[in-house]
Amino acid sequence: MDIAILIYDGFTALDAVGPYEILSCLPKAKVHFVAKDVGPVRTHTKALSLMADFKLSDIPHPDIVVIPGGTKGTIVASKDGGILTWIRKAHESSKWTTSVCTGALILGAAGILQGLKATTHWYARDHLSQFGAEYTNERVVRQGKVITAAGVSAGIDMALHLAGEIAGKEVAQMIQLLIEYDPKPPFDSGSLMKADKSIIKLAQDAARSEFE
Amino acid sequence: MDIAILIYDGFTALDAVGPYEILSCLPKAKVHFVAKDVGPVRTHTKALSLMADFKLSDIPHPDIVVIPGGTKGTIVASKDGGILTWIRKAHESSKWTTSVCTGALILGAAGILQGLKATTHWYARDHLSQFGAEYTNERVVRQGKVITAAGVSAGIDMALHLAGEIAGKEVAQMIQLLIEYDPKPPFDSGSLMKADKSIIKLAQDAARSEFE
Repeated sequence: MDIAILIYDGFTALDAVGPYEILSCLPKAKVHFVAKDVGPVRTHTKALSLMADFKLSDIPHPDIVVIPGGTKGTIVASKDGGILTWIRKAHESSKWTTSVCTGALILGAAGILQGLKATTHWYARDHLSQFGAEYTNERVVRQGKVITAAGVSAGIDMALHLAGEIAGKEVAQMIQLLIEYDPKPPFDSGSLMKADKSIIKLAQDAARSEFE
Repeated sequence: MDIAILIYDGFTALDAVGPYEILSCLPKAKVHFVAKDVGPVRTHTKALSLMADFKLSDIPHPDIVVIPGGTKGTIVASKDGGILTWIRKAHESSKWTTSVCTGALILGAAGILQGLKATTHWYARDHLSQFGAEYTNERVVRQGKVITAAGVSAGIDMALHLAGEIAGKEVAQMIQLLIEYDPKPPFDSGSLMKADKSIIKLAQDAARSEFE
């Protein structure tokens, strides 16, 4: 089972690495980190690079496509013809096409979210409608073979859900135990519904400075 | 604030990337991925490499040290004189010295857990006593400036806790919202207390095959 995780300049590392850690545990999984060129690809913080071992044309027909989000770099990627063409072609034969966070904007730009419900990072939720998608305030949204996840850490929940679909509940639960995913956040401000207004304001300001 | 995240051949990516994603949002954070040599460092699955932009001697006095775990490679790293010497020296002046998952075995081998309560991946829990540490079945264990986290995904909770200690509750909550960390795992088998016996057996077999 070929899994392609797209990386591009300015992607967010956890968007990609959360799903990778889970999907790589699936039976017969072969995970490929793909980018326009083979070599190091820098994340949005600029403090980390992940290696792309494959270029897009190396993996034309993955079974699973994972598109991570990011900040400004995601907007650039969503206008990149080479990336969009690869996603459209891969989606034709994929079993699952997925995004995490603002990766949904790239799927949207490729035309894949037209007429679908979808989710993305809360900061970018108003951007989905331009691609004909209906923003849905859920952590993971499945529409046929297309699955979108909310911001950054939501890719972990999305991938566990997908692991259950692909390999069954027992294997997914085994993977959950292997990565000891029994989350206990010390605070409870992980969504717009839960965070105080003052915290939302701080996060909006921080997100704005990353995007603009 | 200098943050050093050690990477070594066979580390687990999420152990490192979870804390990175949170700590890099702290005010004045400068995150450094360090390894014995500058260049790509392959994870335990072999499907992914992260770049080490710095060698150990480039960052001798980080404020925060993060040691991720892994499988067989972690055992090798825990016997590597260069790595252990760097950790001991860094710990002398660090404000916080932390581990995720079996990274605790490396901290232990460096002598840092002697007499302390600590946690690690459930599969490795019997290994802590050889370093004079007392295994404690908690997701995050703080002893003075030393913080250990349970397996893989627990590094996210550890780093949020640490963010709160360093920058205050408001900043930590802002970061939680930025990474939309409102976890909703589709199953509830993330710990030995919660998983069914049959799932534990599957996970033990899978972990054993990774370690031996």
